[in-house]
Amino acid sequence: CTSPCAAPFERRRPGFLTLGCRGVSTGARGDPHSEGKARRAGRIAVCGKACLAKEVFGETLNESRDPDRPPERYTSRYYLRFAFLEQAWDRLAEAGFHMVACHSGCAAALLGEPSDDRTWNSYIEYVFFRS
Amino acid sequence: CTSPCAAPFERRRPGFLTLGCRGVSTGARGDPHSEGKARRAGRIAVCGKACLAKEVFGETLNESRDPDRPPERYTSRYYLRFAFLEQAWDRLAEAGFHMVACHSGCAAALLGEPSDDRTWNSYIEYVFFRS
Amino acid sequence: CTSPCAAPFERRRPGFLTLGCRGVSTGARGDPHSEGKARRAGRIAVCGKACLAKEVFGETLNESRDPDRPPERYTSRYYLRFAFLEQAWDRLAEAGFHMVACHSGCAAALLGEPSDDRTWNSYIEYVFFRS
Amino acid sequence: CTSPCAAPFERRRPGFLTLGCRGVSTGARGDPHSEGKARRAGRIAVCGKACLAKEVFGETLNESRDPDRPPERYTSRYYLRFAFLEQAWDRLAEAGFHMVACHSGCAAALLGEPSDDRTWNSYIEYVFFRS
Amino acid sequence: CTSPCAAPFERRRPGFLTLGCRGVSTGARGDPHSEGKARRAGRIAVCGKACLAKEVFGETLNESRDPDRPPERYTSRYYLRFAFLEQAWDRLAEAGFHMVACHSGCAAALLGEPSDDRTWNSYIEYVFFRS
Repeated sequence: CTSPCAAPFERRRPGFLTLGCRGVSTGARGDPHSEGKARRAGRIAVCGKACLAKEVFGETLNESRDPDRPPERYTSRYYLRFAFLEQAWDRLAEAGFHMVACHSGCAAALLGEPSDDRTWNSYIEYVFFRS
Repeated sequence: CTSPCAAPFERRRPGFLTLGCRGVSTGARGDPHSEGKARRAGRIAVCGKACLAKEVFGETLNESRDPDRPPERYTSRYYLRFAFLEQAWDRLAEAGFHMVACHSGCAAALLGEPSDDRTWNSYIEYVFFRS
Repeated sequence: CTSPCAAPFERRRPGFLTLGCRGVSTGARGDPHSEGKARRAGRIAVCGKACLAKEVFGETLNESRDPDRPPERYTSRYYLRFAFLEQAWDRLAEAGFHMVACHSGCAAALLGEPSDDRTWNSYIEYVFFRS
Repeated sequence: CTSPCAAPFERRRPGFLTLGCRGVSTGARGDPHSEGKARRAGRIAVCGKACLAKEVFGETLNESRDPDRPPERYTSRYYLRFAFLEQAWDRLAEAGFHMVACHSGCAAALLGEPSDDRTWNSYIEYVFFRS
Repeated sequence: CTSPCAAPFERRRPGFLTLGCRGVSTGARGDPHSEGKARRAGRIAVCGKACLAKEVFGETLNESRDPDRPPERYTSRYYLRFAFLEQAWDRLAEAGFHMVACHSGCAAALLGEPSDDRTWNSYIEYVFFRS
């Protein structure tokens, strides 16, 4: 088989892969000096061509949400089995990718009653490219 | 014809192309520990000089919203026929473009009644340049 | 006259120029699945040293809001006579500038009554530098 | 004196300097098609090692909020005496710094009564590095 | 011991480290022309592989929230004992890291009663990489 996806070490294909995750900020109510908490949360999503994602993340890739994606097709429903973004970035760097951009889409959710603490979400996306 | 747009392989013109899409975050109400959902959504818009957009995206470009744009003029009303950003980025990279910036304009829409789930939007823009 | 501004082709001065514009997102009310609209809107502002802005944009620069700015002084009140950001970026690239950063300052305006659609603004800034 | 801060032209020290300023957006109420206004506002803050800030900005640096900071210590309370970001960036570029990042922290202030116009703030940060 | 973490000067390992901190903006109520205050606040968090964080920050690293992390594992619970981001960035640069991205996740907390001043938070993240 001469597919580049089947031979990643012979010819590394160029392409983009995107990691996405949510950030959560909980603002404690009633005390403007409270620390609140801001942190990344939830699963790390992987978007891009299926064979690139598999090449980079291997067994740590959860494909259960998009199990039959052909290798040359794109997906945005893969997830990682681990939770540390830096671990994912290190794997991408080892595979020859570099981070070209990141941004956090603003999003907020007014959850519960006014008397409750509020939780606010943002969606953070990290874009990697291998030339 | 000596137009650079008609001869992309003889002299590749420099220029910028921008991709835009919306992000949507739905925050489930009443449960601060709910996962909510954040994802890209909607069509991918293409902004820039008409002939550059056509050179890169060819038949996958939907020009129906701006059908008579002269090739040397700028448009912000083209769309892609496919939905994966990474697929668009890969085509841009194959044509010699690289991502120079991205950002997500903050935008939120308070939809429906207080008792409903809220949907929040952001607008994400990816800027590409070919020198 | 030996001013660098009068002789842009003999010695191109280094410097920063910033483009700014507003983004507008209209969220249709009552239907969380509505598409809404997100787009850039309004005039493109040009900030930086007056002579650099004039060198790059020439007759397409609207100086009516700051008509007597000396060439070596800075302004943030110039505007472009055209509306496409990519057209402005292409001119900047032709003059030797490259985009070094962009960001969108979050801003939202709750306009009108709760029963109306809401319009949300963001302010987007693109920073260019010529070395 | 062999301090690098006293001899900036003999050995230029590496380091980071950050500029910060607020952006303000005023949304006129009641007319969804109003232009509103978005602009940078307020003083430009300078954060980083005191001697680097003094080397770059000299007499244009306002140290009154942190007058006794030792040159090798860090401060986030210096301000510039001028108001144009591009002017500050140009000085940084002349001193060998380049912009490595910028972002705008989302922040909004719901000021006054529902019947008033609202003012929304964001905090914009520009990061410079000299290697 | 031939561990790269034990011999940082012999072979510097590639990898990512992320710094995170909160930004706080307090909007004074009732006066749309008030300055309000925007500033970074709170501790600087360090995320990434434990041994990389220890190599760069040494004694200035607070590991009390994640005291038993093995050196090859990832953590997001380390903090710095000092408060200046530029000081942290300078240490990272001295260790061969460069800033590849930064973003500020949008987050806001509506604290207290409508009659109070509001405090708004954002979470800022700075990504560094050593190749």
